[in-house]
Amino acid sequence: MSLAKSGFPAGFSGGTAAAGLKASGKEDLALILCDSPDCTSAIRQTRSSAAAAPVLVNRTLVETDSIRAIVANSGNANAGTGQDGLTDAIQVRYSAASALGVEPEYVAVCSTGVIGQRLDAVALCDAMPAAVGNLSSDSDHSVAGAIMTTDKAEKRFALDVELPEGTVRLTAQAKGAGMIQPSFATMFCFIQTDAKLSSETCDLLLGTVVKRSFERISVDGQLSTNDVVILMASGASGITVAPQSESEALFGQALDALVRALALEIVADGEGAVRVGRVLVEGGGDDTVEHVARAVAGSPLVKAALHGGDPNWGRILGAVGMALPDSPGMPVDIEIEGIEVCSAGAMVPFDEEALNKAVSGSEVEYTVRVPGSGSVTEVFFSDLSHEYVTINSEYTT
Amino acid sequence: MSLAKSGFPAGFSGGTAAAGLKASGKEDLALILCDSPDCTSAIRQTRSSAAAAPVLVNRTLVETDSIRAIVANSGNANAGTGQDGLTDAIQVRYSAASALGVEPEYVAVCSTGVIGQRLDAVALCDAMPAAVGNLSSDSDHSVAGAIMTTDKAEKRFALDVELPEGTVRLTAQAKGAGMIQPSFATMFCFIQTDAKLSSETCDLLLGTVVKRSFERISVDGQLSTNDVVILMASGASGITVAPQSESEALFGQALDALVRALALEIVADGEGAVRVGRVLVEGGGDDTVEHVARAVAGSPLVKAALHGGDPNWGRILGAVGMALPDSPGMPVDIEIEGIEVCSAGAMVPFDEEALNKAVSGSEVEYTVRVPGSGSVTEVFFSDLSHEYVTINSEYTT
Repeated sequence: MSLAKSGFPAGFSGGTAAAGLKASGKEDLALILCDSPDCTSAIRQTRSSAAAAPVLVNRTLVETDSIRAIVANSGNANAGTGQDGLTDAIQVRYSAASALGVEPEYVAVCSTGVIGQRLDAVALCDAMPAAVGNLSSDSDHSVAGAIMTTDKAEKRFALDVELPEGTVRLTAQAKGAGMIQPSFATMFCFIQTDAKLSSETCDLLLGTVVKRSFERISVDGQLSTNDVVILMASGASGITVAPQSESEALFGQALDALVRALALEIVADGEGAVRVGRVLVEGGGDDTVEHVARAVAGSPLVKAALHGGDPNWGRILGAVGMALPDSPGMPVDIEIEGIEVCSAGAMVPFDEEALNKAVSGSEVEYTVRVPGSGSVTEVFFSDLSHEYVTINSEYTT
Repeated sequence: MSLAKSGFPAGFSGGTAAAGLKASGKEDLALILCDSPDCTSAIRQTRSSAAAAPVLVNRTLVETDSIRAIVANSGNANAGTGQDGLTDAIQVRYSAASALGVEPEYVAVCSTGVIGQRLDAVALCDAMPAAVGNLSSDSDHSVAGAIMTTDKAEKRFALDVELPEGTVRLTAQAKGAGMIQPSFATMFCFIQTDAKLSSETCDLLLGTVVKRSFERISVDGQLSTNDVVILMASGASGITVAPQSESEALFGQALDALVRALALEIVADGEGAVRVGRVLVEGGGDDTVEHVARAVAGSPLVKAALHGGDPNWGRILGAVGMALPDSPGMPVDIEIEGIEVCSAGAMVPFDEEALNKAVSGSEVEYTVRVPGSGSVTEVFFSDLSHEYVTINSEYTT
């Protein structure tokens, strides 16, 4: 596979417009269309019980294995909006379906922005013709721009993937960082390919790569009301990725690399973030290592120390101790950037100068070993900064 | 009961000294002594599996139902220090026991401060004669001062409690806020009374009031390696608090009020805190309401909004949705300071000006109703401030 210039895979186009939902007047409406009626797809959405109206619409009214179009807006999450919100999401979906000439059940709807305020569906519908009017095959960058909220930069990648049968293309546009956004709503990731995949293969591959990417990052440990990841395959390349074939393995690797790269961009773009932490936990029991990794990644004290470039390993130990209470004297080993700082729960001598240097880089890796063996996991997380507090304490007012 | 002037209850004295553990040179060693060999007591300590050496010593080597003396230091938590730390804690305990003329098994040892650095036990032992030399019955304020780390002020209360049989006295000294302290170690609360209680009554009452106070506060959701609460009863008043008597009920109420007041002082003194939040959750299932309350109190987005005086109720909804995933369309009701903002999961019209005013006070109350009935809980929490980030990103370096 190789990084490629921008532009959608064959069979896809995107269009954008400014509907006036963003106070800045920037573009806030994005359409993605596959021109093939045989388009296959898969979707993963938030599990929040306060899921936004568009998520509920996608869950109940959309044929999620054959999504042909996406209508997405930024500036308003349409969450906490009750029956009115559902009506608004359905109206926007109908408007997009009609303008694109696609049946509504094949159109997914996605919203991101502030929650608890009614969506201006009329403004979005009014802007629909403009977005349809500029549909083009090289607009993945403007789609990535129109879904941004507080993202510092567009997040998108394009890959050309060499398969035994020929080259297929993979593109993806993403935004946000879970609930880190002050809107506290939403990570989006829209992925397109011109490979030919069954909807079952789409679902299998998407499920696998999401577990290794978006489910392994944490900015502030908060589950969003609006998270959505959609993979669409147009088949326009004529190259089939068959189940359990070499092509499937190669395509899966490329998809994994693409999605992990975007997930890491989301962590690195955490509000005010200056460093990305990676905690690797080894030991006995999948649940145990997961719980420990989440506790370390979610600790505001670990995150603040990461922000300050402070090699305060005691906070890692404390987080582990909290994650596994009532296990007196647990023999935890901790390494920071490969430098052993704690063995069997107790400090060991280390080169302080080397450690101070190691934690001042843009990425810091923590390795934690708890008793037992056979299980391992990782979580990527951003630091806790003054800017995070500023943005999140002054959002709606 | 009535608030009283400072000074220990009959039978108790305290002494303090500067051992040089605090860079500021301020006092960092505190002794509390009960002069009666019939002293009864109860203790509650952290459940962390990375519990500090003094916690392990208290767990295994101390007769916790008859503690007669406490030796406490600030400036170093003696946590993450392995076998050396145990040796140091035992040495400090022996030194205090010897200087006070009490058998070591009746001496509890407590440490707070930075973790992962070896305790200077020799400095503490050297300072022991000075602390013993100024033992006095009115030194509860200096004890409260010597256990401070980043606390803005001493935390102590004294109560005179009228029982049918006569008046008894209750005093308590506290410090810290769970793991909010940059040391990330430690809440202490030392409680004394001259009432006569069996050790079983001490344990029963302490267990009950700790559940209603220290277990219901959250600064940053982090469990400390060093938390400890100790109740000691000298019996010097000659007034017995018998099991299931009116006196026990009255004494219990006073103890509850004392300990809750100190717990709230700890939350209000959270690093950089300007406001205290109280979330009250009602609904079906003790585990459910507890989980929802913790999710709201622990959300950095809710805490940042509290800090900024931002009435961003969507973040409350989001936290509830995260706490109870996979329950689509949960009908959550939310009130902020008695103003209904969300009904059955959807926004309702409210007086924005009144709400803005309500969330700018020093305490903000959130009421959350989830489906079902019969269970209710509350958590007090502090806000997330720039100062928290500053202190916690620059601590050990």
